[in-house]
Formats: sequence, C-alpha cells, structure tokens
Amino acid sequence: MAADANAGGPGYRVLVAQGGGPTAVINQSLVGLVLEARRHAGVTHVYGARHGVRGIVAEDLLDLTQETTANLERVAATPAAALGSTRDKPDAAYCGRIFEVLKAHGITHFFYIGGNDSSDTVRIVAEHAASANYALRCIHVPKTIDNDLVENDHTPGFPSAARFVAQAFAGANLDNAALPGVYLGVVMGRHAGFLTAAAAMAQTHPDDGPHLIYLPERVFDTESFLADVKRVHAAHGRCVIAVSEGIHDASGEAIVTRLSQGAVERDAHGNVQLSGTGALADLLCEEIKNKLGIKRVRGDTFGYLQRSFAGCVSEVDQREAREVGERAVQFALAAGGRDGSVAIKRVGEYAVDYQLLPLQTVAGKTRVMEDEFIDAAGTGVTDAFRRYLRPLLGTGLPEPARLRAGPVPKRLNKD
Amino acid sequence: MAADANAGGPGYRVLVAQGGGPTAVINQSLVGLVLEARRHAGVTHVYGARHGVRGIVAEDLLDLTQETTANLERVAATPAAALGSTRDKPDAAYCGRIFEVLKAHGITHFFYIGGNDSSDTVRIVAEHAASANYALRCIHVPKTIDNDLVENDHTPGFPSAARFVAQAFAGANLDNAALPGVYLGVVMGRHAGFLTAAAAMAQTHPDDGPHLIYLPERVFDTESFLADVKRVHAAHGRCVIAVSEGIHDASGEAIVTRLSQGAVERDAHGNVQLSGTGALADLLCEEIKNKLGIKRVRGDTFGYLQRSFAGCVSEVDQREAREVGERAVQFALAAGGRDGSVAIKRVGEYAVDYQLLPLQTVAGKTRVMEDEFIDAAGTGVTDAFRRYLRPLLGTGLPEPARLRAGPVPKRLNKD
Repeated sequence: MAADANAGGPGYRVLVAQGGGPTAVINQSLVGLVLEARRHAGVTHVYGARHGVRGIVAEDLLDLTQETTANLERVAATPAAALGSTRDKPDAAYCGRIFEVLKAHGITHFFYIGGNDSSDTVRIVAEHAASANYALRCIHVPKTIDNDLVENDHTPGFPSAARFVAQAFAGANLDNAALPGVYLGVVMGRHAGFLTAAAAMAQTHPDDGPHLIYLPERVFDTESFLADVKRVHAAHGRCVIAVSEGIHDASGEAIVTRLSQGAVERDAHGNVQLSGTGALADLLCEEIKNKLGIKRVRGDTFGYLQRSFAGCVSEVDQREAREVGERAVQFALAAGGRDGSVAIKRVGEYAVDYQLLPLQTVAGKTRVMEDEFIDAAGTGVTDAFRRYLRPLLGTGLPEPARLRAGPVPKRLNKD
Repeated sequence: MAADANAGGPGYRVLVAQGGGPTAVINQSLVGLVLEARRHAGVTHVYGARHGVRGIVAEDLLDLTQETTANLERVAATPAAALGSTRDKPDAAYCGRIFEVLKAHGITHFFYIGGNDSSDTVRIVAEHAASANYALRCIHVPKTIDNDLVENDHTPGFPSAARFVAQAFAGANLDNAALPGVYLGVVMGRHAGFLTAAAAMAQTHPDDGPHLIYLPERVFDTESFLADVKRVHAAHGRCVIAVSEGIHDASGEAIVTRLSQGAVERDAHGNVQLSGTGALADLLCEEIKNKLGIKRVRGDTFGYLQRSFAGCVSEVDQREAREVGERAVQFALAAGGRDGSVAIKRVGEYAVDYQLLPLQTVAGKTRVMEDEFIDAAGTGVTDAFRRYLRPLLGTGLPEPARLRAGPVPKRLNKD
C-alpha cells in the first residue's frame, strides 16, 4: 500500500471501467458504484472508461458526474456492459500506461468490474502506484457468469446466467418429451462447470432431463459418453444432455479440438475459441447418430444468449450486483481502508455479506466446482449443489406441470 | 359435411391431439379446449391422444375428463405439448386408420391442434367420416411459431417465439456493442421469415442491431451478403445479423447445403434438416472471416430455445391461444355448425375475433411474409411490419438504455 488516497481530503476523482464478458447485471454494479460515489461530498468527479482498460490507455473517458440518475437507473436494468468492455489482458507495460493516464487525470480511486483477469490488472496497476508513491485506491469489483473467483460464495452475473440455463433446459426437456430423441445443449464455462451444472435445476420430476451433465472438472471420455447416452435412451426413450464447452480428455485437450481434428480458432493466448460456434454440439450429435444409430439427435449451443438475453434475470443477482458496486465505494472511501477485491460471503440460508479481500487472493486464480457438488458418476450434481444454487436463482421460476390423467381402455388394439 | 355430430343429443365424446413442433402456448389451447368441452352438459368424455395422430392409431388415449382443473391450469402455463406431439404426416391410408379408432371409441368431435400439415390431416379424416356417413365434427386449432397459416392474421405460438427472438437480439446487440465484432443469429422458419423478421423489434436506437436481416422470401446471394456486412461493419465498427434457417439461392437450394457441399441430414420428406445444428451459422461466419478478414465473428443458432424456453411468453399470445381452444369447442358444438379451421382475425388496433374457415382454405397451404413487410433492399423490415408485430409481443418488454454522458477532455493524447 502506497500513499493513502483518502488522505488528501475532498476532491476525489473516481474512475470505473468494465472488463471481460458482459453479463445481465454488470450494469447494476456500475450504477451502484456511480450513485454511491456521487453521494459522497468528497467525490468531485466520477469518470467511466469506454471498453475497459483499452479506453483508459486511449483516454476514452466519459464524465458520469453528468449522467441523470433516472437514466442511470434505466442503464442498471440493461444487460451487457454499458461502458463497453474489452478482452485485452494487460501486461506490466500496459498497466504502466494505465497508471500514467490515471495520474494525468488525478484519479484517486480506481474501480475495475470484471473477472480474475481484471483483478490481476488491478493488482498490477496498484503496484505501479505504490512504486511511484502515488495515492491511488484500487478496487476490483467481481463479475463473471463462470462463477470461478476463489474465496467468493458466488459471483454477480452467475445467478442470472444460471437461471437462463435452468429455464432453457426446463423448456428443452419438455420439448424433448413431446418429440422424443436426444437433445444436447452446450453451455459456457471453459474451466468451471457451475453454469453447465445449473441445468440440473430444470428437473421437476425424477425422469426429467437433463439426464446427463458433462463438466470440465471431470475427464471426458467419448466411449463412456456414448454408453451413458445409450443407457438413458434405452431407459426413457429419450435423453437430454448438458455439456460444458470446456470438456477435455485426460491430456487436457479440448474435445472440440479432438473431434474436429484440430480445425479450430485460437485467440491471442492460444486458447481454443469455444463460444460463437456450434461445432462441439454438432460433433457430439454426429457421434451419437453414427455410433448409436439414434435418428432424432438435436444439438443447441446456448452461445451469447445465456449471458446477455434481455429479460431473464435473478432478482437476487440484481440486488447483489448492485450491492457489490455500492460496497466497493464504501470500502474504498473508508478511513484506514486498503486496496482489494470485493467478495460475496454467504452468512445464512439465505443471506450474504461482503468482504474486501487482498487483491493477490483473487487475482489470476480460478475456482472450479468443488468435489462435493459433483455426483460419484461424474455425470450429475449432488443435493449439496442444488441447495447451494437454489436461493441464487430468485423467485418466479417456471413450474412445469404434466397431465396425470389415466389411460382410456383400448377397443381395437386389445392386448 | 356428413351426418351431423350434434344431432344425436347428449353423450358427446371429444378427442383432442397436438401435432408438429411444440410452442410456449400450445397447452393454453389444449386446456382452453378441454375446460370449455367439460363445461358443456352434453359432453360426457374428453379424451387426449398421446403424441398426436401416432397416439390415435395406437389407441394411446388419456381420459382428460378425470384431470383436475387446478392441474390443467398449471399445464396451460407449461411450454411444449403436454399430450406429446409427432412429426408424422398421415397419408390417406393413415387417416383411414385414424378414423377407425375414432369410430371404435364413438368419438363425435375431433380436434387437432397444429400447423398446416395438421389441418390437412383433419381435412382427410373428415372426408373418411363423410364417406362412411359417420357423424364426426372435425376442427383444426391453429398453432405454429412460423406464422405461416393463410387467412390468419397471425397464429398462436408465433408471438411468444417472436418475443424470444426480439429479446435475444436486444441482448445480443448490447453484447456486440460492448465487445464489437460481427454477430450472426440463425432463427427458425423454413419458408416464412416472420420469426426472423421479429429480430427487428430489438432496435431501440437507430444504430442498434440487427443491422441486416435475411429472409427466405428473398433470394440469398453470398456476394451481396458479404458486401452488406462489409458496409455495415465499416459504418458502425460492428454488425449484428439475423438470418433465417431457410435462406436459399435463386434455384431454391438451401444455403446450408451449398456451403456445406451437400453434407446435410434429410428427413423422410427429403427436407434438409435445418434446426438442431449450428452448421449454417458456422458456415456463414467462416465466409465472413475468410472473405472480409474480420477477426471477431460469432454465430449463434437459436435452435429449440426459441420455441420452448420456459419463461418467455407474450400474454397476448397466451390469451389468444386459450381463446382459439375455447372457440374451437364453441364452433364445434354450435347448432348447425360445420367442420373447419379456427382463425384469428384482427378487427382493431389492437383487437381480434375468431372465425371458422373451411378446412380446404387452410389445409396444406403456406403463408409467407407479404411484400409490404419487407424493405426495398430485402435486408430489413418496414414500419408496416413493426406496426403489425408490436401489439402481439405483449407488455413488459425490456427497454435497453445507454449512457449519455459527455467525454472527459484528454490530457495526454491531445489531438
């Protein structure tokens, strides 16, 4: 910790930015943060950077002090990142340029809303400020549909995306029951299977899908997969499957790479492009058709709908996303405060509180699903996971019902 | 018209079935029909066939007279087809077997909820009854997300699917604005572009996507498509595209067949399998990447989510789907009634009424988008279409908002 950003007294200048993949509620965090900052007499300016760190280095800043509260409230209810986002993952030199811009604009408090990459950026920027003995408070505000930040009970954005996945599978299961066959839905999450596992919440009756769930926390074996599908299809006359985009073999190679024989797109970090393509679903469906001889096999890739569909949000997620923004400002402006990453802690069934963790606790680390959340077969979730997830999804979830009428005795085709 | 089904007096036996693709509100029609039938003193039995015509010939019937009203109301609010559906398209012999089962069970009133194939089945079954001089009232109840029934202002199921598509593109547009690039969403509809065109309702600001819409009512030319995308991307730095799964070239060949060099699945009728695969989106994205050199190109295929997502429904659609079921029974039991297909007619801005059309008016015919609904360029919709669609979507649609704050003067990178 360098010089105290709060020591200078009134005249604070706040800068906020949004990074990584958009979510349904990231703008709640932005607006909670902006309104809380504007409430403080000591804060004279609240700036927002367009497209995350990229906008900072380009000095592409908006003066949010001038926004109407009414419009901010409407923005809060809008999905995706209102300031714009970026996939840039700054190295030390890039962070140095960020720091130079913050210094030039006299920024005293820097907030970055994002995932674990973003928290690492905040950490490095804070180090630059400390080296320069420049008084800058640096706070990371959590956000990710992947739910993969360590030391967080869960992350804002995940509950709404999980709700979308649960509602999607509830509908897909009913569709599949009406027109039986195999249905496979591919869900986002490269390393952490939380979002794919949320599909389990679609089950109302014991024979409801998804009947099989494949997570990146377990090794994916195509032969076992086919045997599982064959078994379920024989038992129910149909099969609904949830698959994480991040499934991989024992060597860690992505299944989409194996099945497509390497014809995949890679990003600047060498990561295989998993979203924005239906390749994995199509390849797995081909396997089922060719190897099991099942005729009606359909695959959907939930793609970008699951993180930004306008109109599917958990009100619990909405409220908590708002609060992490508000709490970020309170932590930042507290007397004797420190840099850190805001985290959600569960303190009741169901209640949460917020803590400020050291940046290095969260930065660059990835949480995956705990073993106690995955069943023994590795193709389903446990009751512990259901109990964990249920309160996050909010109220008003669909409650699918079935006809229960008895059969009419046959008159022609008597047995 | 054969013998009068209503002439026999009390003791009517009603049979209802559901056919074709499930929708978010087809169970409203089922339940409206069942409850209205049970309300009539003359009706002694209300049967439902499992999995459409397939369940009729197998005598797989449920006695809906025994269902609780409370459970029926819950089923009404559940998406997909509660009785189960089928893709069987009966020929004359199959319809003969249907008629034999109806006769064996003393059915006096037959209702089939489905699209234009289903109405054709009803027509042929009615002919069998007439030939046999058997008193059977035959009514087709409309349902299809494709909105392709002639002489109908619109069809139950379409408004809710259109709402899903509009909400999906509203979110995808915001996501694309946050992380710019090209986004392409493939929407259902083999011959009729109504559902794809509904993407236009996602636009709030003039530069919002979808910027381009490709419909099966217009010939798709890959070169023109690439030129369109290049132009929009140059103007906005991004591009959001809605594409119908049914786009085809001047010869009528499906684009997915052309781009994949024929490696496609066909159904029993020789139709190319369009849904349940991400092939078209992936192939179009490849074209854009390879020919235009744009790096961030993402494609989603909305697949089964758009017709059965649990929790996205237009309350206008819900109400009308219920009413077509109720009106079907009223038409069927009216003194001096006749066979027919229930149709929605728009009688105000916005109000509807229901008519019973002759079965041959609707049976086996396909409505496509009227020319007045498609703009001159063929890549967008007209205000007439927006005015047509808006009241169908219901209330409570998301209203995306943007930040309007002005820029902060640059201090380092001064121009």
